[in-house]
Amino acid sequence: MLINIENHHKFMLEAIKEAEIAESKTEVPIGAVVVWKNKIIGRGHNLRETSFDSTAHAEMIAIREASEYLQAWRLLDCSLYVTLEPCAMCAGAIVQSRVKQVIYGATDPKAGCAGTLMNLLQEERFNHQTEVIQGVMQEECSNLLKSFFRKLRK
Amino acid sequence: MLINIENHHKFMLEAIKEAEIAESKTEVPIGAVVVWKNKIIGRGHNLRETSFDSTAHAEMIAIREASEYLQAWRLLDCSLYVTLEPCAMCAGAIVQSRVKQVIYGATDPKAGCAGTLMNLLQEERFNHQTEVIQGVMQEECSNLLKSFFRKLRK
Repeated sequence: MLINIENHHKFMLEAIKEAEIAESKTEVPIGAVVVWKNKIIGRGHNLRETSFDSTAHAEMIAIREASEYLQAWRLLDCSLYVTLEPCAMCAGAIVQSRVKQVIYGATDPKAGCAGTLMNLLQEERFNHQTEVIQGVMQEECSNLLKSFFRKLRK
Repeated sequence: MLINIENHHKFMLEAIKEAEIAESKTEVPIGAVVVWKNKIIGRGHNLRETSFDSTAHAEMIAIREASEYLQAWRLLDCSLYVTLEPCAMCAGAIVQSRVKQVIYGATDPKAGCAGTLMNLLQEERFNHQTEVIQGVMQEECSNLLKSFFRKLRK
């Protein structure tokens, strides 16, 4: 299945909506959706503080919801949209679940493992590699984070 | 807190017990426990097939249970025992949760990210590094896996 750039924007906007829900809970605004056959089958937003759970990143929650939907741990032919470049844990989960394509907005200079510090999504020694598209709605995704941390410092 | 080698064996045996529970569910036998102040506060075994969840690795489940126990996502001063070398996702989760020390049994030549393919637990560019002790009860941990796959092939 090919997804064109308009679809990329449409689904990234849904990931941004998830990030905004995180922000409304005073969580760092990061959101993700999993798309299968042009339909969102998993959504997630960062819930680390609220749930006392370091694994409660947006991607992890969206992946689990999508697996529940498909009743399968393999998310073959699925695309994952996330507002921020995945960390090592989330990149690892994306590889574990065989996601076909990852589309992310802002890069993460501190922990990004999908091209910035390293690229675990395309590590040849792993048993699965993922297509990666970066920079979709980068400014919007990045501004969400900047504005959150600006308010936090006040 | 220092943990001596006898304790290492004692807690690895508990991780092995978890691995055996996984095996009894026809899951790849991998088990983990999280230890805090000499007490097990999180246990987990691989449940990928049973739960249709690629993130249901032993370490992830044990980490979540320990966070629930401590009501904190930071597992400071905790040690994690696991029968098999962590993959990228689990190594990432260990870093995210600030686990102090990881003790593992068998190495994983295909996906091990705690010294074999790479070492995400001691990546200097991440904001946390973990002590790593490998090879505790390596033979027992490794034999569990070998025997499981031998039976599976039959």
